[in-house]
Amino acid sequence: MRIIVDGMGGDHAPGEIVRGCVEAAAEISEEIWIVGREAEIAAELKKCKYNSSQIRVIHAQEVIENCDAPVKAVRTKKDSSMVVGLNLLKSGSGDVMISAGNTGALMAGGLFILGRIPGIDRPAIATTYPILGKGFSLMVDSGANAECKPNNLLEFGIMGSIYMQKVFGVKSPTVGLVNIGAEESKGTTVVKAAHQLLKKSDLHFVGNVEPRELPYGICDVIVCDGFVGNTILKLTEGFALNVLKFIKHKFTEDMTSKMGALLLSKKLKGLKGEFDYSSYGGAPILGVKGALIKVHGSSNATAVKNGILKALPYARENVVQRIEEAVLSLEDVESGE
Amino acid sequence: MRIIVDGMGGDHAPGEIVRGCVEAAAEISEEIWIVGREAEIAAELKKCKYNSSQIRVIHAQEVIENCDAPVKAVRTKKDSSMVVGLNLLKSGSGDVMISAGNTGALMAGGLFILGRIPGIDRPAIATTYPILGKGFSLMVDSGANAECKPNNLLEFGIMGSIYMQKVFGVKSPTVGLVNIGAEESKGTTVVKAAHQLLKKSDLHFVGNVEPRELPYGICDVIVCDGFVGNTILKLTEGFALNVLKFIKHKFTEDMTSKMGALLLSKKLKGLKGEFDYSSYGGAPILGVKGALIKVHGSSNATAVKNGILKALPYARENVVQRIEEAVLSLEDVESGE
Repeated sequence: MRIIVDGMGGDHAPGEIVRGCVEAAAEISEEIWIVGREAEIAAELKKCKYNSSQIRVIHAQEVIENCDAPVKAVRTKKDSSMVVGLNLLKSGSGDVMISAGNTGALMAGGLFILGRIPGIDRPAIATTYPILGKGFSLMVDSGANAECKPNNLLEFGIMGSIYMQKVFGVKSPTVGLVNIGAEESKGTTVVKAAHQLLKKSDLHFVGNVEPRELPYGICDVIVCDGFVGNTILKLTEGFALNVLKFIKHKFTEDMTSKMGALLLSKKLKGLKGEFDYSSYGGAPILGVKGALIKVHGSSNATAVKNGILKALPYARENVVQRIEEAVLSLEDVESGE
Repeated sequence: MRIIVDGMGGDHAPGEIVRGCVEAAAEISEEIWIVGREAEIAAELKKCKYNSSQIRVIHAQEVIENCDAPVKAVRTKKDSSMVVGLNLLKSGSGDVMISAGNTGALMAGGLFILGRIPGIDRPAIATTYPILGKGFSLMVDSGANAECKPNNLLEFGIMGSIYMQKVFGVKSPTVGLVNIGAEESKGTTVVKAAHQLLKKSDLHFVGNVEPRELPYGICDVIVCDGFVGNTILKLTEGFALNVLKFIKHKFTEDMTSKMGALLLSKKLKGLKGEFDYSSYGGAPILGVKGALIKVHGSSNATAVKNGILKALPYARENVVQRIEEAVLSLEDVESGE
C-alpha cells in the first residue's frame, strides 16, 4: 500500500508535512510519496532520519494557495502538488491521499479528477467532533454543502456510518440527525423529509439530536447540512478557545488564584488537549471515488502523522467500495428489487 | 405603566414567578398584574412581604402546559393565564407582558391575539447570547422561524438593532450575518441575498460573522434563521454545561487538584455565572404588535425579576412603534418615495 501526501499544502508546508511523513513512516511499513517541489522537500528531508526506500519525492512545480479560487486553481495549476497527487491516486499509483491544502480546491479536485461514487449525489467532509473525556463523534457534512436535499443527508448518514465501522471499528454506529427539537415534526422541510428517509433506512438511526446534546456524545455519526455542520464545528472551536483564554486570565488575576492554578497545571493542560481535533486523524472527503483526506491547514507534524495513520484503515478496508455497494443496494430497495 | 405576568407559565410556577414579581416590585414603582389561578397565586403571595396596591391578581382558570400543541392550546384554552394576559396586553390594560410558559404557544398567541407589526413578515425571538467577561450579543432569530426568506433576515436585523438601542442604550448597534465564511459569495442562496439587503440598509452592518467569532462578541446583533440561531444557542449552553461538569470532575480527582480548586473556588463560581443567560432579562418576541417577553421555562425568581426590569425600557421606549416606523420607512425607500 502506498500513501500520497501533498507536500506543499497547509500553513506549515513543506517543513511540518515532511516531518509528519517521517514520523509516520517510523511507525508503519507502507511507502509514502510526498508530492511537491523536489528541492524544497529534499531539503526538509535532509534534516530528518528516515528510511529512503520508504519515502519518495514526486516533483510538482506549482502550488495551490489558500487564496486561490478552488475550481480555477484545479483547472489551471495542472502541475500543482495537489493535482499531481490526485492523478496518482486516480491512476492507482497510490491508495490514499492526504492534503492540508485549500479545502475547496481539494473538494473540487476530488470531484473533477476522481469523480463521484455512483449513486452519491454530493460528496461531504466528515470531521471528528471531540467529546470531552469520551472520544468523538463523526460529523457529516462539516462544510462542503451549504444547501442539501433530503437524500443528501441520507447519503451522509450511510457514508459516515461505514467510515466509523471500517476506520474506527464501531460495530453498529448510531446515527443522529441535527434538529432543533426531538419531535419528528420539528425543523425545516428538508430536515423533516430526511428524518423519514433515515428512519426507513438500514442505519442505526437514533432520531433527531439536539445541538445541546452534541457535546455529550449523543451519537457516533452526526448528520447535518454543511452550513449547520460548519457552524457547530467552528462555534465549538471558538468557544473552547475562548473558555481556555478566559480561564487562563481569571486564574492568574491574583496570587491565590495563581497558586491554585499551579496545583491544577496538569489538569489545565489536559483540558487543552481535550479540545484538540487532530489526534483522531484528518477529515475524509466521503463520496469521491478515492480515499481522500483533508488535514487541517494549520497542521503540525503530529497532526500530519495522525492523518497518515488513520489513512491506512481507510484504504485497507476499501471504504470507498463499501460505500458504493451500500448505495447500490439502496437503489435496489428503492426500485423494489 | 403596568406589567402583565403570566403567573402559571414555567417549570416553577406559580411559586418562583410570584416571588420574582414581589422582588421586582420592591425595585420599581410600576404596577404588576399576575394572571392565573387566584387561590394558588394568593397562597404564594401570602408567603411574601409586598405592597398590595402594587401587585394585583387577575384570575384565569386554565393553564397552557409545555406539552400542549401551541396553536390548539391558544385557540381552545381561552381562559388560560397566557391567553387572558395577551388579551389584557392587546386591550391596553397592560403595557408589556412576561411569560415563562410554552414558547410555541406564546408565539402563536402573540400572532393571533396581538397580530404582526405592519410590514413585518415573520416575528422572531431575540435572545441574549453571553460573551465571556463582556456582556452579550442579541441573537435574532433564536428559534421561531426554522426557514427564512432574505427579507425576514433583514427584518430581524432592523428589529434587533432597535431593541439594542432602546433597551440597552447601544448607540449604533453593529449587525452581523451568521455565515460559514467572511466572503459575500459564501453560504446558502438565502444568506447571500440577505447579505445584499443588509448591506444596502441603513443598519450598521458589519458583514458576515463566522460562528467561530461569536463567543468573542463580534457584533451587537447576530442575524440568522431560527434553525441556525437555536443551534448556536443550545450548542453553547450544552457545551458550557459540559465544560463546567468536566472541569469539576477533573478538579476533584485527587487531593492536589482539590486543593487547587479550593484556592480557585471564587473564580470557578464566577465562571458559572458567566454562562448565565438570565441576568440580561428575557427574550422579546419582536415583530408582534405588543411588548411581549419570554423568560426561560426554568426561570427562578431572580430570572423573572430580571425579565420584569428589562421589560420597562421595552415598553417605555415604545420599541414596537419604533419598529413599525422603521419598517414603514423601509417600504418608502423600496417604492422609491
